[in-house]
Amino acid sequence: MYNLHMPDAKPSLFTRIIRGEVPCHKVFEDPHVFAFLDIAPLSAGHTLVIPKEPAETLDRLSDESSAAVGRALPRICRAVMFATGAAAYNILQNNGADAHQAVMHVHFHIIPKFAAGEGLGIGWTAGVLDQTAGRALAAKIAASV
Amino acid sequence: MYNLHMPDAKPSLFTRIIRGEVPCHKVFEDPHVFAFLDIAPLSAGHTLVIPKEPAETLDRLSDESSAAVGRALPRICRAVMFATGAAAYNILQNNGADAHQAVMHVHFHIIPKFAAGEGLGIGWTAGVLDQTAGRALAAKIAASV
Repeated sequence: MYNLHMPDAKPSLFTRIIRGEVPCHKVFEDPHVFAFLDIAPLSAGHTLVIPKEPAETLDRLSDESSAAVGRALPRICRAVMFATGAAAYNILQNNGADAHQAVMHVHFHIIPKFAAGEGLGIGWTAGVLDQTAGRALAAKIAASV
Repeated sequence: MYNLHMPDAKPSLFTRIIRGEVPCHKVFEDPHVFAFLDIAPLSAGHTLVIPKEPAETLDRLSDESSAAVGRALPRICRAVMFATGAAAYNILQNNGADAHQAVMHVHFHIIPKFAAGEGLGIGWTAGVLDQTAGRALAAKIAASV
């Protein structure tokens, strides 16, 4: 387990929240995972689920932490839905400033979607996968997983 | 482990892909998880990561499957980034038709974001969390996690 109290020259805002140095409205904690309400919510119940391990992006997160976050997500989703009455919701996790990441510590947003229209706005301009290019790309990805 | 070959009156498109009844460009498979290229990509390398367990939404997914998906995500993200050269990417997982879910089988999108502007469009109209309401809501969520 990551030692939260190891020397860290520049802890992220979220590490400071986990440590209790910055206040939050906590909804869940276990040895690897911490969850709290977003202070700038897109909708009621907007919750952040984070690993205690201070990885900047998901690709840098350990197997142990990522499995723990994965396991916790459905439980927290159920609780958010129960508490807010939301019937639909989005999970969003951004990696890199170009992809809308603001705090450089992995975080999964749980964003309830209400009929009223609050919540995550999604821009979806889809293309069509070229079969030949797709075959080559899938092989290239598969070779390095 | 979920038995993919148990009788299922109405398998999802993704269950049929996992079974090999519908073709795909596969990039990863383990006992619980399957991943393949989206045929209507938002950007090059747009990949879907799904549990073999045919849960419709994340809140209905078993702990075992959700942990396995969580563990697989960083590995697959690294491979997608390596293969495409993307430096940023979004993870999106939609639950419910009102939240943009099109196939009723849990799926995590890995969507590379390129400087060129391809990828996920994000609409972000944030509010401010009221401290009193936040305290009450966090307590309500925490009580049911």
